[in-house]
Amino acid sequence: MHALLELADVTADVLARIKARAPRVHCITNTVAQAYTANVLLAAGAVPSMTISPEEIAAFAGGADALLVNLGTFDAERRAAIDLALGAVGQGGQGPKPWVLDPVFIERSPARAELARALLGRGPTVVRLNAREFAALADEEAGGDAVARLAAARKVVVALTGEVDRVSDGARAAKIANGDAMMGLVTGMGCAGSALVAAALTVENDAFIAAIAALVALGVAGEVAAEGASAPGRFASWIIDALYNLDRATLRARTRVS
Amino acid sequence: MHALLELADVTADVLARIKARAPRVHCITNTVAQAYTANVLLAAGAVPSMTISPEEIAAFAGGADALLVNLGTFDAERRAAIDLALGAVGQGGQGPKPWVLDPVFIERSPARAELARALLGRGPTVVRLNAREFAALADEEAGGDAVARLAAARKVVVALTGEVDRVSDGARAAKIANGDAMMGLVTGMGCAGSALVAAALTVENDAFIAAIAALVALGVAGEVAAEGASAPGRFASWIIDALYNLDRATLRARTRVS
Amino acid sequence: MHALLELADVTADVLARIKARAPRVHCITNTVAQAYTANVLLAAGAVPSMTISPEEIAAFAGGADALLVNLGTFDAERRAAIDLALGAVGQGGQGPKPWVLDPVFIERSPARAELARALLGRGPTVVRLNAREFAALADEEAGGDAVARLAAARKVVVALTGEVDRVSDGARAAKIANGDAMMGLVTGMGCAGSALVAAALTVENDAFIAAIAALVALGVAGEVAAEGASAPGRFASWIIDALYNLDRATLRARTRVS
Repeated sequence: MHALLELADVTADVLARIKARAPRVHCITNTVAQAYTANVLLAAGAVPSMTISPEEIAAFAGGADALLVNLGTFDAERRAAIDLALGAVGQGGQGPKPWVLDPVFIERSPARAELARALLGRGPTVVRLNAREFAALADEEAGGDAVARLAAARKVVVALTGEVDRVSDGARAAKIANGDAMMGLVTGMGCAGSALVAAALTVENDAFIAAIAALVALGVAGEVAAEGASAPGRFASWIIDALYNLDRATLRARTRVS
Repeated sequence: MHALLELADVTADVLARIKARAPRVHCITNTVAQAYTANVLLAAGAVPSMTISPEEIAAFAGGADALLVNLGTFDAERRAAIDLALGAVGQGGQGPKPWVLDPVFIERSPARAELARALLGRGPTVVRLNAREFAALADEEAGGDAVARLAAARKVVVALTGEVDRVSDGARAAKIANGDAMMGLVTGMGCAGSALVAAALTVENDAFIAAIAALVALGVAGEVAAEGASAPGRFASWIIDALYNLDRATLRARTRVS
Repeated sequence: MHALLELADVTADVLARIKARAPRVHCITNTVAQAYTANVLLAAGAVPSMTISPEEIAAFAGGADALLVNLGTFDAERRAAIDLALGAVGQGGQGPKPWVLDPVFIERSPARAELARALLGRGPTVVRLNAREFAALADEEAGGDAVARLAAARKVVVALTGEVDRVSDGARAAKIANGDAMMGLVTGMGCAGSALVAAALTVENDAFIAAIAALVALGVAGEVAAEGASAPGRFASWIIDALYNLDRATLRARTRVS
């Protein structure tokens, strides 16, 4: 694996490759987060699409380079769309296209948690979630060992985000100390982070590294934004701009992965 | 009741309690307003959720501290979601949880106006609306006496927003002169105000006072924002920031309730 | 027709008439673009509405001054809504109310392209699209002659947007060199442009001129915004503000139509 010390450069490389290749990321996501997620992807250089229509989602997902499956605004139409999209990307990650599972708010709804567990069995490349969602999915509290256990048991890269992000593929583990508390005050930020992981997966085959790169990029962008915008309204725009302008020198100065 | 002179402090107290308690506010609202509403609630310290899926809305509404029922993007699924959510919060306000009715655009659609009248019969804690919506709901033109009449007749706190906001519970009445015309040029601002009323109801049992506090807070935030942002694009972010930073001194200097 | 040299003044006049008349524009558009589209219309002085509920869309579209039909987030409900709305505005433009077709992403989905072709047969006043969408709709590559051919063949004003916008009604043709690359990094910008065309059609009977005026206004606003905001997060707000503040002198200095 890459030494953790090199991760600033790895992140810069991943961002450069996204800008160069303009990968298509199809997002099945909630209506609350759609516009913000699309704008984060555009700022990073990816091309978002968002339809969930059963008549055309297979065409969109099949033509995309990666897929995001976010469970926010869970409903029957959404579940059908997920099925069709996973079919189109290669039956749950067994095919060539990566996909990210974001089990939003599963701690609030048993029906949603059940769907998340079923989807975890279909082989997402990465699952990104917060501590409450982790506890609902893994039946144990979040923490470094628990993250590695879930990753090993389900053969998935787990990306747990919070004050410190934890990423593990079961064999390897990383802690990311980047980010800013303001990120929790912008709706859709977690969803947008998951979409950025999906974009990173299109240019970096090592999913553990891709997840770290995406979370480092968003976290460092958050830190840069917070220096100019100290309240969440303007911060929401500034972090997009910081991501758009993120350069290697800034990443080298700020990346904190251990 | 609180003397109107004290309302700046009451508003500051309500905002402080929202930040301390981080109440959950479940919002059944239109897709146009969802993200902005969520960001306003987050800036105030509340925790928004937005699902309308019939399979899980009872879990979300039942676990929330208050409910917002907004009729924008009216459809069969939305009506079913409202029924389930009102059941979960205690059958229309008879139970312990407050809920706010926002009858968006009912002057444009007879079907929507009919639903709003039916929902008014189910006992919302507060109904927040503009003058055109008021006229469609009350069958008379908006005005101070009309507001008090509707409030008394339907045993509900009526919060009519406009250049001057009017709040009444039938026995008491207040006029709020805070706000800025720019607020009318940001989509979802009224909806977000209704959500803020719902958040205030979780920490202030007197619904008349809670409604005033929420509208004062948003109106003063709008005035502060307008001083820095004189056009609606940036104003939309600045008012969120002003709400996030709103302090007692600013409220004391600016609150205009009579 | 207006001489192209006069188009700065024509654009200023169109914007002034929109502000004076506050036309209602009903938008059938995708959930990704709804809020941004509404805010652009509000900044221009128009009054947006967005419902697609079959029970009330005829009331909304029938009461509106213009209609936008955007195919993003294509689904059965959306198709039914389009049918009802076109009925309400006068069966596809034959009646008094103008409507704009925006065939978003039809190059990605055969079902969506088929619907776009069917809708083109129902007589939109203007079709606004990008080069990939044009190729999917016209079965030939986009270009000045191709735009004029499609316009003549389908008796519609075609507004092709890109680095240079091309507008034709079959007999007349214009190239608009205004705009900024940053506009492509804000989700919903094209959709909002289509909505602005719809607003312009409510105050300018010559649809060729109305389409030019709307695209010039948005393009010049983009240029002004890009001078203050060099990254897409802030740019998204600044272009709204630039449109809100757009004056005749700025239009005269910047309009580039040939």
